[in-house]
Amino acid sequence: MTTAQRNATLTGQMIIAGDAVTGAGKVVHGVNPATNEQLQPAYAHGTAADVDRAAAAAAGAFGAYRATSSQDRATFLDAVADNLDAVRDDLVERAHAETGLPVARLTGEVGRTSGQLRLFSGVLREGSWNGARIDPAQPGRSPLPRADIRQRKVPLGPVAVFGASNFPLAFSVAGGDTASALAAGCPVVVKAHDAHPGTSELVGRAVTEAVAATGMPAGTFSLLFGSGQELGIALVTDPRIKAVGFTGSRSGGTALVRAAAARLEPIPVYAEMSSINPVYPLGGALRERAAELGTAFVGSLTMGSGQFCTNPGLVIAVDGPDLDAFVAAAAEALHASAATPMLTPNIARSFAGGVEEFAGEATVVARGAAAGGPNSCRPALFTVAADEFLDSETLQQEIFGASGLIVRCRDLAQVRTVTERLEGQLTATIHADPDDHDDAGALLALLELKAGRILFNGWPTGVEVGHAMVHGGPYPSTSDSRTTSVGSLAIERFLRPVAYQDVPPALLPTAVADGNPDRIWRRVDGELTRD
Amino acid sequence: MTTAQRNATLTGQMIIAGDAVTGAGKVVHGVNPATNEQLQPAYAHGTAADVDRAAAAAAGAFGAYRATSSQDRATFLDAVADNLDAVRDDLVERAHAETGLPVARLTGEVGRTSGQLRLFSGVLREGSWNGARIDPAQPGRSPLPRADIRQRKVPLGPVAVFGASNFPLAFSVAGGDTASALAAGCPVVVKAHDAHPGTSELVGRAVTEAVAATGMPAGTFSLLFGSGQELGIALVTDPRIKAVGFTGSRSGGTALVRAAAARLEPIPVYAEMSSINPVYPLGGALRERAAELGTAFVGSLTMGSGQFCTNPGLVIAVDGPDLDAFVAAAAEALHASAATPMLTPNIARSFAGGVEEFAGEATVVARGAAAGGPNSCRPALFTVAADEFLDSETLQQEIFGASGLIVRCRDLAQVRTVTERLEGQLTATIHADPDDHDDAGALLALLELKAGRILFNGWPTGVEVGHAMVHGGPYPSTSDSRTTSVGSLAIERFLRPVAYQDVPPALLPTAVADGNPDRIWRRVDGELTRD
Repeated sequence: MTTAQRNATLTGQMIIAGDAVTGAGKVVHGVNPATNEQLQPAYAHGTAADVDRAAAAAAGAFGAYRATSSQDRATFLDAVADNLDAVRDDLVERAHAETGLPVARLTGEVGRTSGQLRLFSGVLREGSWNGARIDPAQPGRSPLPRADIRQRKVPLGPVAVFGASNFPLAFSVAGGDTASALAAGCPVVVKAHDAHPGTSELVGRAVTEAVAATGMPAGTFSLLFGSGQELGIALVTDPRIKAVGFTGSRSGGTALVRAAAARLEPIPVYAEMSSINPVYPLGGALRERAAELGTAFVGSLTMGSGQFCTNPGLVIAVDGPDLDAFVAAAAEALHASAATPMLTPNIARSFAGGVEEFAGEATVVARGAAAGGPNSCRPALFTVAADEFLDSETLQQEIFGASGLIVRCRDLAQVRTVTERLEGQLTATIHADPDDHDDAGALLALLELKAGRILFNGWPTGVEVGHAMVHGGPYPSTSDSRTTSVGSLAIERFLRPVAYQDVPPALLPTAVADGNPDRIWRRVDGELTRD
Repeated sequence: MTTAQRNATLTGQMIIAGDAVTGAGKVVHGVNPATNEQLQPAYAHGTAADVDRAAAAAAGAFGAYRATSSQDRATFLDAVADNLDAVRDDLVERAHAETGLPVARLTGEVGRTSGQLRLFSGVLREGSWNGARIDPAQPGRSPLPRADIRQRKVPLGPVAVFGASNFPLAFSVAGGDTASALAAGCPVVVKAHDAHPGTSELVGRAVTEAVAATGMPAGTFSLLFGSGQELGIALVTDPRIKAVGFTGSRSGGTALVRAAAARLEPIPVYAEMSSINPVYPLGGALRERAAELGTAFVGSLTMGSGQFCTNPGLVIAVDGPDLDAFVAAAAEALHASAATPMLTPNIARSFAGGVEEFAGEATVVARGAAAGGPNSCRPALFTVAADEFLDSETLQQEIFGASGLIVRCRDLAQVRTVTERLEGQLTATIHADPDDHDDAGALLALLELKAGRILFNGWPTGVEVGHAMVHGGPYPSTSDSRTTSVGSLAIERFLRPVAYQDVPPALLPTAVADGNPDRIWRRVDGELTRD
């Protein structure tokens, strides 16, 4: 089947436990933001009945799914990855039409998405995710004998995942939240983002085919279409849903957090929301390469129309001729930057509104080229004195898109004051030369309290998927700073520990059984061992 | 100084960053529940100004405290433990007067409390708490090079700890919450429980002396007196407080959870609340030793006037002559049990009211001896048919104290139905003989979803402090099932991960520095190693 043929087979249907289901709600279409062309087919939103059916299927599948071995779940995740890679061209074509994101970027994003799934199949095979601990019995201990106590982690239950608009693959239907929840042994119900329904259907099919091919229970995965306020809230408040993964706006994430907290049984919500990702070019770095840094900053700022969670929207530096040179180079680069389409008409409108609001409180340094097509992002660069920044409620807010603000500080003490006033961030970036290291060290200690990832002499866009990555941070960058939504640690979001006391050997889970049949790392009497 | 002399030195003052501070609020006294004697001195509640001062001191101390080495914090925790052991007799005498708990139990609880502190000093010296991970750079990777990324955990910030009434030492001023938060690098502000103010002052002094002796910043620890509704809420909503540890009632814990969620910056609350700890004597076990089990059940039920979080308040079993024998033996043991004082007059009143309410919906099998003194717990044993239990909203509620309910089920299927309807629990206990193992295995899988600890052929009272223990569980047994409040894993409650990307070697924290100077376990490229 060619890509065109496969895209022509899109049905506009949801997938509930393997069954194609036509929604009875509002009808939406994908829209090509570069042309405003309405894309076929139509997608009808689901209703409360569909949420009920998907949640019931997930709850029904949970027992069998969580009882599968790590090896079997790894095989399943690998099958999802293989299925995605097999339809890569279809995914890229449809996602390009639905999001306006460049083909090269989307091609890379397919690889990143299947790579994430394979990272978690590796996590499952390695086995430390079990958190196995054994404190052997001490029958002779005085004054009281010690019981045999063992600990492992078990999955929380069905998880609701909300697809993000800005990563139609890597943070969407089979993105990091879904991959880590499935790895943990949790069935997943996805609410697709209306901005890329066709891409979502293609990915949903790839997952569904892998469920069937590897013998997982059908209720392990469902894909629904619907609005956040209605279907989304219905999903988060369904008593069978036990955790939530979300990437999106601060208002959307906050609404889910509040709905989850108001349940009879509150549940964890992992919402990745708002971040302006401060950048700190220090004195030595500015002295050595102000112009180079200004140009590179704009490259990161405008990448993908600035629609990355880690987009560097804020530069904080000591004022002076070197910062002027940075600003001049940034202005020149921004002025030369092309207007590129944003993900949706709504996002483009919000961006334009945000830029207009900032213009009332900060000085416009440069704008990018005027828009050539609809929904395009005309990049913007502002500057403001730190005193005014500190007084403003507007200027610390995120403008989703390629808008940057340079805060001019009197001295390093004021850099620190501005930083102390920042809300929580996904990232913070320091540009430092060796003679900046004392200043950089002091700043690093402060930024550890403000951000989930701190990087030197680079740019925050581009989030490596690995074991050490943290894509998270203090509120409001996320609703739960104790974790990450990218990288292998993300599996811990969907697990909880259980202790087994004097459980007969025949009934012990293999992760904590005598003789270590799974050959995994375990903490025995406090010491890590693979024996 | 003798114990009497030391107790005579009690001042009735709070401790804020090392300073003795007299509250300006309502005045309370400890009360000996066995005699209703009012104990001296008077303790005046703090006000919002004291919360502000303690939170400011904690926030001010945070930077220096978190920068201390693991070794230095371990030395500090050991000093607290030594100081507690040194005043053991004073603590036991005062706590006995304030709580009515037996001297032997309190003597053991001092050892448990200092043992918990030493467990965490061991955790600090071992070093895995850092969660160190290193993904080395791959400069030659195609299509894009990989940056050097390292991860470690950092403390959340100042933590508010609420002392519990039922463990005046182990879950109070220097209990598990305080020990794990201090280990993590978080300053602690404790709100003492009004039921044991003198004990709290003695422990607070022991901590304060250790702070000074080991050179920790004074703001590392403060001790306040006050009501939960006023001072407690003020503490939880103070923006400088970043996490909360609580052990107490469902209503109290829920109020703190809601207050924390409504903050501008929501924070995690670890509230251990309500659990009725079901016990399942299976068919073979009942056949072999019904009477023995019934007697032992009452021993666990009545221990410490039934005022354990893990008190076994519910027995779920298949009806028949063997269960009758269990009930008869339990009734006999209960009838012979002494009335012992409860912790406070309020708790004794609530217990009596709860028993009365149960008597309207279940059959009274036996009561313990009539009360000999004030505030005493007259144990109660009830039985009810499973159908009625399933229809009742009352009977699944916790009665804090020695009240047990035996639910008679038609068959194992109904045992399962009853279990599925239970709320989350701290523990679940199975009594099984080898020929029960098929039934036990099926039940175990279900109970993994309902409880934090599952034990066989024992009793849930008595929580071993070690590496594998889980004292936690699904809501409402706790507000956050992903963790434990007892055992070494508890440190993770107060930590969050941070990633360091391309950070210059000279600025890297030692936990993730080249050459592994701390000699700790780290995950390098996904593989655990101590190299």
